[in-house]
Amino acid sequence: MSLMNELADRTLRGELRAVSRLLTLLERGDASASPAMEQLDPHTGRAYTVGITGPPGVGKSTLVDRLTAHLRQSGLTVGVLAVDPTSPFTGGALLGDRIRMQRHYLDDGVFIRSVATRGQSGGLPRIVKSMVRVLDAAGKDVILVETVGVGQTELGIMGVADSVAVAMMPESGDSIQTLKAGVMEIADLYVINKADRDGANQMATAVTNMLHLADLAKGWNPPVLLTQAHANVGVAEFWSGVEDHRKFLTDSGNLERRRVERRRQEFLESVQEELHRRVTALIRSDPTMAEILDGIDTKATEPYAAALRLLADDGKVTALFNQR
Amino acid sequence: MSLMNELADRTLRGELRAVSRLLTLLERGDASASPAMEQLDPHTGRAYTVGITGPPGVGKSTLVDRLTAHLRQSGLTVGVLAVDPTSPFTGGALLGDRIRMQRHYLDDGVFIRSVATRGQSGGLPRIVKSMVRVLDAAGKDVILVETVGVGQTELGIMGVADSVAVAMMPESGDSIQTLKAGVMEIADLYVINKADRDGANQMATAVTNMLHLADLAKGWNPPVLLTQAHANVGVAEFWSGVEDHRKFLTDSGNLERRRVERRRQEFLESVQEELHRRVTALIRSDPTMAEILDGIDTKATEPYAAALRLLADDGKVTALFNQR
Repeated sequence: MSLMNELADRTLRGELRAVSRLLTLLERGDASASPAMEQLDPHTGRAYTVGITGPPGVGKSTLVDRLTAHLRQSGLTVGVLAVDPTSPFTGGALLGDRIRMQRHYLDDGVFIRSVATRGQSGGLPRIVKSMVRVLDAAGKDVILVETVGVGQTELGIMGVADSVAVAMMPESGDSIQTLKAGVMEIADLYVINKADRDGANQMATAVTNMLHLADLAKGWNPPVLLTQAHANVGVAEFWSGVEDHRKFLTDSGNLERRRVERRRQEFLESVQEELHRRVTALIRSDPTMAEILDGIDTKATEPYAAALRLLADDGKVTALFNQR
Repeated sequence: MSLMNELADRTLRGELRAVSRLLTLLERGDASASPAMEQLDPHTGRAYTVGITGPPGVGKSTLVDRLTAHLRQSGLTVGVLAVDPTSPFTGGALLGDRIRMQRHYLDDGVFIRSVATRGQSGGLPRIVKSMVRVLDAAGKDVILVETVGVGQTELGIMGVADSVAVAMMPESGDSIQTLKAGVMEIADLYVINKADRDGANQMATAVTNMLHLADLAKGWNPPVLLTQAHANVGVAEFWSGVEDHRKFLTDSGNLERRRVERRRQEFLESVQEELHRRVTALIRSDPTMAEILDGIDTKATEPYAAALRLLADDGKVTALFNQR
């Protein structure tokens, strides 16, 4: 049995060290994990994935921490993926948030992983989808994916979660504008956290009114929930809202449709990503490329025109696909 | 003379209708504009491009409006590209901001254009770079590019601007966290707008302290400027900060280096974008693709493995490049 088969088998038995190892391979962008991912794939689909997104500072991590505790009390196992937009200068900036989750580290029913997206701009990395699949295959009942996002930049969370909760807080004047900037497409639930602060009710009313105006016509009216995660207020109600949405999706057949659509999207992204990797490698390694780049530097060639010319060159294109 | 040659010629003479038409072609993703772009390219490089980015609600549009007025008073011509993350539900939400710019619409020395990024998640669309080049070739002295951004998602602005100003405001508790989440790599200047509100000075101190800690070692210390754009306070000082940065870039030779690097990056993005377009078209049109997608739907094939297999199929790959 190959190492990858073994890793997959152990993951299917729920061994956390195997899960952790597989996630590390994925995070490194190591294609060697692919056979393990193929073996796990038929065993996925049992877990329910919830995305929790919103601007920095609204208390998403605390919400995830309290929700994890609530789910554990209900006897459910939990996987947490915290997608951190770390910076080279402040790599550990969000570590503090993770410390709050520490009490769960000794609980075998909880698996927590931070995923750094350093160096990637925009969107959710494709590997997060693979990571969700690993936790699913490992038997976690609920997978919580926490992402930082404002507006359209976080549409990516739709590609990974069955239900998406958008978290906000009162007093951040930005939040309503954020809604306008594209969040309404992605939210299945709205959570106004830090609801003990002034303006929480007004904000809830504003969001509700905006929802009426938008007339989403999805057959689902996103609830607007008030929470105070730090005081554990509203967390059970939040989960109950997720369960309602899950029931709606299941009863309407939308859950299966969404999931199939997501898999197709992931295939497309995988093709793009692999092509991206190969193009970058070609440009770095091909000695004749220096000439093209020179032409671009000196304005002898316009960048887009140079791209079209490269792709019209059969020799170069063959080289792209002979990289394995 | 072809239509595209004519459009390019008229753009070079600064005719605003030709500029507008060319930008529309670019916005539609129409490759037919490519010959015009090639013709304009050698005539670019004279304009100075300033990116103004920051979270929603901090007053970026007002800042751009006042800065435009200030530049006009100094006898400079101005191009403005406002990149709007519009939503299908709230397409016109940011229109209000544009209304403030209206007084400039009758001024031939100002060209204003909103660029919708609807449907695109993350990053700055490549066409914004082409649009900047059009305005540059049309003779605009300064090009202001306004984008909505939080953290790492807005690294894209570096790909288009000579100087990047990050705008914030007091009281948005998010802003300092935003800095942590990756903005420090991109900011050449910090602007704390709405500086008449409580906490402006504390915020400036916090940002300054963070800059000391980061020790960016770029030979440039980003200034932290206080503005009240609505009252026209600090706008001249903001521009003077940009001019200082421009002088630093020019004297150190970094301006030319940055610009060459940006052109190379644009070439790479063009290749990726064109491949993306072709892959998407292939998947939509190729009848044998249905079989692959079926396998993905039924979990017979894992999405990433399916992607690797597609790219190993020489017939499919040839099809990708016979699309012209």
